[in-house]
Amino acid sequence: MAEPGRDLTDDYELGDNRYGKSRIRLVTVRRETDRHDLRDLTVAVALEGDFDAVHTRGDNTGVVATDTMKNTVYAFARDRLTGSPEAFGLELARHFATYAACSRAIIDIEEQRWLRIPEEGGEAPDAFVRAGDLTRLAHVAVDKAGGVEVEAGVGDLTVMKTTKSAFTGFDRDRYTTLPEVEDRLMATKLRATWGYRPDLVAAGSFDFDAAWDRARVALRQSLADHFSPSVQASIWIMGTAIMDAEPSIDWVRMVLPNLHHWQVDLSPYGLDNPGEVFVSTSEPHGLIDATVHRRSAG
Amino acid sequence: MAEPGRDLTDDYELGDNRYGKSRIRLVTVRRETDRHDLRDLTVAVALEGDFDAVHTRGDNTGVVATDTMKNTVYAFARDRLTGSPEAFGLELARHFATYAACSRAIIDIEEQRWLRIPEEGGEAPDAFVRAGDLTRLAHVAVDKAGGVEVEAGVGDLTVMKTTKSAFTGFDRDRYTTLPEVEDRLMATKLRATWGYRPDLVAAGSFDFDAAWDRARVALRQSLADHFSPSVQASIWIMGTAIMDAEPSIDWVRMVLPNLHHWQVDLSPYGLDNPGEVFVSTSEPHGLIDATVHRRSAG
Amino acid sequence: MAEPGRDLTDDYELGDNRYGKSRIRLVTVRRETDRHDLRDLTVAVALEGDFDAVHTRGDNTGVVATDTMKNTVYAFARDRLTGSPEAFGLELARHFATYAACSRAIIDIEEQRWLRIPEEGGEAPDAFVRAGDLTRLAHVAVDKAGGVEVEAGVGDLTVMKTTKSAFTGFDRDRYTTLPEVEDRLMATKLRATWGYRPDLVAAGSFDFDAAWDRARVALRQSLADHFSPSVQASIWIMGTAIMDAEPSIDWVRMVLPNLHHWQVDLSPYGLDNPGEVFVSTSEPHGLIDATVHRRSAG
Amino acid sequence: MAEPGRDLTDDYELGDNRYGKSRIRLVTVRRETDRHDLRDLTVAVALEGDFDAVHTRGDNTGVVATDTMKNTVYAFARDRLTGSPEAFGLELARHFATYAACSRAIIDIEEQRWLRIPEEGGEAPDAFVRAGDLTRLAHVAVDKAGGVEVEAGVGDLTVMKTTKSAFTGFDRDRYTTLPEVEDRLMATKLRATWGYRPDLVAAGSFDFDAAWDRARVALRQSLADHFSPSVQASIWIMGTAIMDAEPSIDWVRMVLPNLHHWQVDLSPYGLDNPGEVFVSTSEPHGLIDATVHRRSAG
Repeated sequence: MAEPGRDLTDDYELGDNRYGKSRIRLVTVRRETDRHDLRDLTVAVALEGDFDAVHTRGDNTGVVATDTMKNTVYAFARDRLTGSPEAFGLELARHFATYAACSRAIIDIEEQRWLRIPEEGGEAPDAFVRAGDLTRLAHVAVDKAGGVEVEAGVGDLTVMKTTKSAFTGFDRDRYTTLPEVEDRLMATKLRATWGYRPDLVAAGSFDFDAAWDRARVALRQSLADHFSPSVQASIWIMGTAIMDAEPSIDWVRMVLPNLHHWQVDLSPYGLDNPGEVFVSTSEPHGLIDATVHRRSAG
Repeated sequence: MAEPGRDLTDDYELGDNRYGKSRIRLVTVRRETDRHDLRDLTVAVALEGDFDAVHTRGDNTGVVATDTMKNTVYAFARDRLTGSPEAFGLELARHFATYAACSRAIIDIEEQRWLRIPEEGGEAPDAFVRAGDLTRLAHVAVDKAGGVEVEAGVGDLTVMKTTKSAFTGFDRDRYTTLPEVEDRLMATKLRATWGYRPDLVAAGSFDFDAAWDRARVALRQSLADHFSPSVQASIWIMGTAIMDAEPSIDWVRMVLPNLHHWQVDLSPYGLDNPGEVFVSTSEPHGLIDATVHRRSAG
Repeated sequence: MAEPGRDLTDDYELGDNRYGKSRIRLVTVRRETDRHDLRDLTVAVALEGDFDAVHTRGDNTGVVATDTMKNTVYAFARDRLTGSPEAFGLELARHFATYAACSRAIIDIEEQRWLRIPEEGGEAPDAFVRAGDLTRLAHVAVDKAGGVEVEAGVGDLTVMKTTKSAFTGFDRDRYTTLPEVEDRLMATKLRATWGYRPDLVAAGSFDFDAAWDRARVALRQSLADHFSPSVQASIWIMGTAIMDAEPSIDWVRMVLPNLHHWQVDLSPYGLDNPGEVFVSTSEPHGLIDATVHRRSAG
Repeated sequence: MAEPGRDLTDDYELGDNRYGKSRIRLVTVRRETDRHDLRDLTVAVALEGDFDAVHTRGDNTGVVATDTMKNTVYAFARDRLTGSPEAFGLELARHFATYAACSRAIIDIEEQRWLRIPEEGGEAPDAFVRAGDLTRLAHVAVDKAGGVEVEAGVGDLTVMKTTKSAFTGFDRDRYTTLPEVEDRLMATKLRATWGYRPDLVAAGSFDFDAAWDRARVALRQSLADHFSPSVQASIWIMGTAIMDAEPSIDWVRMVLPNLHHWQVDLSPYGLDNPGEVFVSTSEPHGLIDATVHRRSAG
């Protein structure tokens, strides 16, 4: 323990810091006359600001309790979760940015999609199955001066290309045993995030749902169509395709684990294996992380 | 350590036992001219039999190595994974049941579904996204004498009913604080398994895919349609609906966690909450497990 | 949906069923003058009984709400969690077995161990670190007539033997490629459970903590000492060692995944590997499950 | 798809990027005459550099395959994993930094601790149990010019203070319902990382194990001793204590989830609860992230 009277701030200083509430799990049901709408969000709130005294002197003045953050998310969900997760995030972030000590409020949202259960002659008005094919991501930051940053994306999108993927021409040295391969499986659990042009999103009329849909369709289509000489090149191809399709996007980042599928050697059992039987593995895995920018962007 | 010369079997005896290989992850790609078919199975093999000497004397005679089980699964996948997971399981189980020491071979399969990525004018022939909405389950056991047991099911099916669910009239005592509720959310991650009539499945011509599809549709439809006075009653209703739809099924078992969604009290913030805003939780959770039998079944 | 007037019980009947509350997470702090005692339990309650009308007619009479079960666990923890988890489980099970509809009450408990943080000159009286090396398991069932069943065990005990483990003499066939090996790593995440003699545990004075300690020490010691010709033989050896050490135990069940560690072939890089460098894997894994009984047991 | 002849680099450019291999699971056994030493590391390799052509033109020249990275880790483990994980990371990073295209090589290591199983009269020479109480972390980056960055830390350290934790004086507004509390439980799954002075670690004789031990003891002791007015203040107190104890450390970062333990209201059952019975929860959770710097540091 520090000796009595010693002022630790003579020797140390606070650096980067943020705090907040994570894993706020929120479900809303909007009860229209003839059908219900179901939303399922997991929200995280984080604040940055002048919290020196909180850390160094134990003075909680100006601290918004993380419990209050949670309450606020549920209260705002009552009336203000009427559109996109990005718009909801903006409402929340703008609210938190008004607190005196807060210089920047950051909201992260993962939205799970639920689909109406199909029924004879239509869809159930009030029964749902979780889609499970991907998560929609939204990230919003608002600073004291009103500056706004909005990112969106998809997570947990597990995809596989059964051809049009190769890996050749790489460096070979003493530790290289991987053969060059002209045709391999490419599998990944994709996470893609992208940033919208700040001037567009600050305006208030930006259609986040439409932009997200266009980006997602472009991602999906380029994923299916392109020939991949490497996961790195795939990121470039898919990232530029997203920006070609959606001019409001300034940059795209992708983090792709390369979930290796090894062709099984069946020759010990007297069988051939013309690219038909594979072991799927999850570790170790390649991990490729790259961001592609629009040149016109700042 | 036991003293020299002591025979532990004077004092102890082996009881129930089984061994095998779990988490055998298998992907197959069938390469037709114009499109690929993708399968993704996780297989477990277990054997029961006369393995007393293996345990009590360290005598491995007659032991099929679990590594051999794994190899066999991949080898069989080359030519024999052409239909349902149940049929593949039967091929494997019948093979393992021929080993001298094996009295019963058990195969468990979880199949992940992958969907072709939609493209302009159709679907990608060679690019897939994991569906993520449910897992198809198959369980096969074959005994030495040729007796066959086939079960199928669905797992990881996360569903929600936003109305038509109540919970009233239950016991109230000193420890009861839960109010009776006429209209609540019901959410669960459903696991349903069912057993087919042994005489039908042994014949070899049973259409497991069609039966599974009919059962799944009946499950989905009854899930959406029924009024639930309790999770227990829901199991009865959905289980009997499955058997009504598919006469080859003798019994249905369901294990349903009740994933509670608590309506948030927004009154501290001056807001009402007419069943619109909920906290979703995962623990603690109710857990309801019941089996429904067809009376005509043995 | 069933047609109006149809009685589904003409065609179907309820089979095995149970229901309850799982993942009830409970922490208690006993505040002695000079130090605190910390307990951390995860409790599950399940009831079996005459619940036909609950399932088939939606009649909740006699249903103990799972919310009430949760409340009861916390209320009982106030005064009655003073000794072993088995004793706490018995208190709870005996309480639930008194409900009219309940024929059998089952309590499962996982206890996490926390250790006092070491300090200069002793241990912290009020600061703890989670041990993380194993989980203590307790399972109690009480039936209406007062019959009592108590099991205990350890879970999540991850262990490795770096020698004294072999696997030879097993069956070889077309699909066998595994070499025989006289010296291998054996690694597992062990789960062992055992049953106490019913007459001893019903008496009320049985010392569950002492019995658990003796069983655990015997398990640990036999694990370290024995030569393993197979995982199956290891179960026999460790199970009989536990019963040798603790006469109150009638049977021991072990479920051992065989977490394979493959010796890496370093020869492509001009290096030998005399059993020094291994890849640890988690899937696929062997899975060995066996129960050993004391002969004097019923 | 991009139209033929279009050069995407006219419109887009590559930004930040890195790639590598994650989850390389490595176990080593050093076989001394009378006892074995067991190490268990999970290693990740990442490279940064001039990989523009890899992304934008599909040219893999200069790409070190992630499979080669994995092989290299195992090969280096043969002879060079003789000391601290930081030293092993430095060997690896310096090797990868020699590749022409690589401007910066980054190695992340998590080390699991295994303890010898206690035996009568000593410890087992060749049988181990996984400690499970924490993970040792090491992070090394080496750039082309030889610049070196070494960080260390602990992860997955789950701790609880049963008193000496308060939270009062925080902001109250419309959405605040949390009462001020002078005495609460504080529980967290702590992750602390710290940076060593570059001049010290580059020298080659730095004792990483000793520094890590001193830091860990200081962390543990300050954790147990201090009074916490908030999690933020705890980070300051523990971070400065670590740097007081270990002059080679320039900064400490801590990321602390606040795993809330709610005191149960037992009054509905006629019971008091003087801080004895709690619900432990994992979501939502507070999340506090702060870095403390030594003033003398750059």
